[in-house]
Amino acid sequence: MSSSTLTREQSAKAFDGHQYVYSHESSTVGCKMKFGVYVPEKAEKEQVPLLIFLSGLTCTEQNFITKSGVQSLASKYGFIVANPDTSPRGCKIEGDSEKWNFGESAGYYVDATESKWSKNYRMFSYINEEFYDLIVKNFNVNPKKIGILGHSMGGHGALISFFKRPGQYQSVSAFAPICNASASEWGINAYTNFFGQDETLWKQYDATELVASYNGPKPHAPVLVDQGSDDSFKDNQLFPERFIVACKTASFPLELREQAGYDHGYYFIMTFLEDHFKYHKNEFEHAQ
Amino acid sequence: MSSSTLTREQSAKAFDGHQYVYSHESSTVGCKMKFGVYVPEKAEKEQVPLLIFLSGLTCTEQNFITKSGVQSLASKYGFIVANPDTSPRGCKIEGDSEKWNFGESAGYYVDATESKWSKNYRMFSYINEEFYDLIVKNFNVNPKKIGILGHSMGGHGALISFFKRPGQYQSVSAFAPICNASASEWGINAYTNFFGQDETLWKQYDATELVASYNGPKPHAPVLVDQGSDDSFKDNQLFPERFIVACKTASFPLELREQAGYDHGYYFIMTFLEDHFKYHKNEFEHAQ
Repeated sequence: MSSSTLTREQSAKAFDGHQYVYSHESSTVGCKMKFGVYVPEKAEKEQVPLLIFLSGLTCTEQNFITKSGVQSLASKYGFIVANPDTSPRGCKIEGDSEKWNFGESAGYYVDATESKWSKNYRMFSYINEEFYDLIVKNFNVNPKKIGILGHSMGGHGALISFFKRPGQYQSVSAFAPICNASASEWGINAYTNFFGQDETLWKQYDATELVASYNGPKPHAPVLVDQGSDDSFKDNQLFPERFIVACKTASFPLELREQAGYDHGYYFIMTFLEDHFKYHKNEFEHAQ
Repeated sequence: MSSSTLTREQSAKAFDGHQYVYSHESSTVGCKMKFGVYVPEKAEKEQVPLLIFLSGLTCTEQNFITKSGVQSLASKYGFIVANPDTSPRGCKIEGDSEKWNFGESAGYYVDATESKWSKNYRMFSYINEEFYDLIVKNFNVNPKKIGILGHSMGGHGALISFFKRPGQYQSVSAFAPICNASASEWGINAYTNFFGQDETLWKQYDATELVASYNGPKPHAPVLVDQGSDDSFKDNQLFPERFIVACKTASFPLELREQAGYDHGYYFIMTFLEDHFKYHKNEFEHAQ
């Protein structure tokens, strides 16, 4: 581990491995960024697969590692699991902390183009370049077995990362993703700020738009998306039905499961998280 | 469920069952009390075992249900798991919220005798009478299969409940319990407030003292206690070694496992929680 770049903020043994939190100075987003990373005991001896988990609105790097029970699964499956923060922090841009669904804790995993935001709000490049490289370089990752997944805004982040970076990830899955960000109220507000009025820019960060033009490697098994039936955001912000139609039109394989009675929270995520581990494991086994 | 006594504050589906939070007006401690209860799907059809989990200092009913991953295990084993709060709240007694280790969030599961505290700080009676009865009455509990466990101050609470109520619980276990409360700094401060200077009262709520005179039913397998080796409270507040000696002297069966590298937090608890489920299940199978 390169101690010049990473500062250990937290360390706790869990299921024979360790749950860490590190911080580093990010050149991409221009501030100090924290992330969580679970390292299973297995990674002491050999390279292991990596899952990158992107969190939803209001989250820091803490929510997922505290509430999802991921450590048990990461240990069982022998995966490193890394989870970044959801936005730059402390940049003191006017308007970055007035709304819970925009700005700090709500970076939407995009690279903003409007000058007010474009220096710091570059979460797409942060996740898919700086953070990705940092994890691969500093931990014992098998670079041919890397998957990405996320929840809500982070499910959107995982899907757009997969579609915009063909071949970078061997697998993708999502929990209750924002499927059509450029047409949801949250997304419209965020994208108007980040990109201005040019909606062609908005559509470059929208899973339902991107799947139409995706021509990278197809997954072995249909991409796994879980969506709770009792999720109050389902029909007004997430729009899973539109993504189903777009995938069908594009002949892109998707298994979107509606889970009866589940809501939008971490009890929903923890319930189906093992299915996602199995999905990614299966994709890794079929990856070249 | 008697809706006149319980108010549902939270409900979320998890692993086919439900994680609830309820509140009720407690006659024992004289204020509104919240608790968590996970009800597995199995309890819709039949009576199931109950585990009562007591939390540690600084906790509300939220910490355990948010951080431990218990829902996965409660569903798998088919147990109801109920977890009360750690103290009365909102009673506005001078000095009840100045220290993190005394008063609100820090009731030590005792019945205070000093007049300032004795009206509200009756957590021993609350847990072992009012709360116990409330859970058994309102949920589909098999009253012959009830176990108690806890963490830190709550591990102390579980052990003293088992010792002071012979036969009420079929099983007990603990994570990093305060083993000798009347001789630890936290306990001395709390017990001086709750009981005054009479140390014979202190010893009535101290696992290491109580095991000496316990003559109730013996557990089938040695009582399971897990203790992290890297727990910074181990040698100055918890005193597991004293409990080991006291159990040996009393010929009370104890398996105290020192877990190398683990600390005092929830990552430690979540790692070994399934072993505790297995322990209680085994005791239930041998119970009359």
